[in-house]
Amino acid sequence: MDLPLQGLLVLEFSQYLSGPAAGLRLADLGARVVKIEHPEKGDACRKLAIRNTWVDDSSLLFHTINRNKESFSSNLKSEEDLSTLFKLIGRADVITHNFRPGVMEKLGLGYDKVAAINPRIIYASISGYGKEGPWKNKPGQDLLIQSLSGLLFTSGDQAAGPTPFGLAIADILSGSHLVQGILAALIKRHKTGRGSLVEVSLMESVLDLQFELLTTYFASGHLPVRSALANAHPLLSAPYGIYATADGHLAIAMTPLHELAEIIACEDLLLFSNDEIFQKRDIIKEILAKYLSQQSTAFWLGKLLPNDIWCMPVLDWHQMTEEEGYRQLHMEQDIVTGSGDRIKTTRCPIRWNGRILTSAKPAPGIGEHNASIKHEFKLTSE
Amino acid sequence: MDLPLQGLLVLEFSQYLSGPAAGLRLADLGARVVKIEHPEKGDACRKLAIRNTWVDDSSLLFHTINRNKESFSSNLKSEEDLSTLFKLIGRADVITHNFRPGVMEKLGLGYDKVAAINPRIIYASISGYGKEGPWKNKPGQDLLIQSLSGLLFTSGDQAAGPTPFGLAIADILSGSHLVQGILAALIKRHKTGRGSLVEVSLMESVLDLQFELLTTYFASGHLPVRSALANAHPLLSAPYGIYATADGHLAIAMTPLHELAEIIACEDLLLFSNDEIFQKRDIIKEILAKYLSQQSTAFWLGKLLPNDIWCMPVLDWHQMTEEEGYRQLHMEQDIVTGSGDRIKTTRCPIRWNGRILTSAKPAPGIGEHNASIKHEFKLTSE
Repeated sequence: MDLPLQGLLVLEFSQYLSGPAAGLRLADLGARVVKIEHPEKGDACRKLAIRNTWVDDSSLLFHTINRNKESFSSNLKSEEDLSTLFKLIGRADVITHNFRPGVMEKLGLGYDKVAAINPRIIYASISGYGKEGPWKNKPGQDLLIQSLSGLLFTSGDQAAGPTPFGLAIADILSGSHLVQGILAALIKRHKTGRGSLVEVSLMESVLDLQFELLTTYFASGHLPVRSALANAHPLLSAPYGIYATADGHLAIAMTPLHELAEIIACEDLLLFSNDEIFQKRDIIKEILAKYLSQQSTAFWLGKLLPNDIWCMPVLDWHQMTEEEGYRQLHMEQDIVTGSGDRIKTTRCPIRWNGRILTSAKPAPGIGEHNASIKHEFKLTSE
Repeated sequence: MDLPLQGLLVLEFSQYLSGPAAGLRLADLGARVVKIEHPEKGDACRKLAIRNTWVDDSSLLFHTINRNKESFSSNLKSEEDLSTLFKLIGRADVITHNFRPGVMEKLGLGYDKVAAINPRIIYASISGYGKEGPWKNKPGQDLLIQSLSGLLFTSGDQAAGPTPFGLAIADILSGSHLVQGILAALIKRHKTGRGSLVEVSLMESVLDLQFELLTTYFASGHLPVRSALANAHPLLSAPYGIYATADGHLAIAMTPLHELAEIIACEDLLLFSNDEIFQKRDIIKEILAKYLSQQSTAFWLGKLLPNDIWCMPVLDWHQMTEEEGYRQLHMEQDIVTGSGDRIKTTRCPIRWNGRILTSAKPAPGIGEHNASIKHEFKLTSE
């Protein structure tokens, strides 16, 4: 397969989730991604197991994010290793790292140094909070960034208190933004022949995520307030939200209230005018919640869907993976690791020329590709 | 400023949030983005106000997502308008749309037709659920996609029931993935001279978001369970989560439990071994929550931060924007609309060669640039 980014060489100094997630996307789009790892420790994510799940001597998490890559081990504090690495940098198109500000500079791998070796390189970094200001040396960890950013007041009902997004949203978004910056810089290079410095941070990425909410806050000066129940977006009117039914849960999106009232024959909802659906959303949602709890999810879907009301059942992962709609997306792929273990994981979400992008290449062992890369790029001094 | 994507022409047939968010990113990176809008109705997002906030005759939401773009009005059902549009398509680099599958084909603007006019074009679409399968014609709305995808079982405490992410995460992610696909396809075009078809969907984007969780679910067969309190990620051990203090809330990330116990002098936490921090996380979190509620956030930060424990206060938008760390990120920019209204909004989260990317260009009125675009591209038949 002749993928879009075929022929590009990416050196990934990144660890954990954000930078490696960017590397995975570039790899799935066809780039050759080589992890630069410490000879003994490797990417620290190798030892970061979630729910204590391991595959060989690295965590399942590591295998998930680092499939479709190679590994070149190098001790960044050794003069000899560094000089070998400089040769490899001379041949690369992209470098990524997510060390705290100043670390790469101390290692002799700052942007100026790297650009002097290879003026065509795209040098891309992810930090927690950027290079300036009082937060720059604070831990750039996902939950902490979420907590500082106001994001905890978007999810959950009002009484629930601050509620984080239950996965590493800051890491994932900043990795995604890094990919955008890298690809834009590569397009620029076609014209100028010169590389660029691309920088993102977890904090800026999570602020961008909230662009709607922040712009509304700037305009009104009032903090958005989550609804008392069935909150699904602090700025949206009733009935937008999730409702318990007799046997499960139902999601209802933007829907004209009176139309809904008539379809489900809930007269109490007719007491509210269209001007009240934001101000009185808590009362409206309470009436609706009580009413919907009396019948099954299937019963309500049977009433609502034929009338083009935007609603869906709430599914867990088990229920979802049983759905024909899920199966036809072909989001799963199998990887066999170097130790022979089989991992089922998801694929790249982008389709290109009608094809889904999968790759059977597993995550590498530390330094697994040192010999082949040294040979190919003639890096040995002997 | 000579931005990375300068010189590229994007025609945005997209409406609402997902596609236009992709267009905004391309515009902020330097592309010229022209919205193709119905002469009377325009992008339907113009009439979609959140919290009933308007700027001139379009919603604040529309202005936020569509700044830095031009507008060319065209009735896609008129032969004459369509033939003018074909000439413009002949000069464009990228087309985006987020209509349901089949709509663009019916209008005579399907990929095959467009690629025949302009073989170099990148044709990029966002759907709800892809082009195949039983979900393909279901409403591709953000909350409904979240509800089908299992995502509602990641946030909130266990007893809270299914809890959506409180903003349009599926729209935002699919827009972000579309940008990645478009830029990768443009890089490919430099080699081959040919365009590509790039397709993403809200559902595939939200599945990709959960790649860690899904891979763990595939491996274990067990549904992840949210902790009973202080849940911040269903797969992580105690103490990871948000805790109420005497005067606010504190976020604590991955932290060795015994080290934490000693720093805050909470002896009850020493009763749990490192092997129990996942299995017994609810009991551990309960003990910790009770203990931390006795003192202020500042008190705990004063104990924890000097000992390098990863923690931060929980801030709302008001508190955050008062922080010097926030100010130094320079995430805000002012836009003056065509009607003279001033909007404060956020900027692109990517820094390029050390510069932040801002643009003073406001969202366009419907068809505001028809005359200039017709003149520039010589589109008039007269």
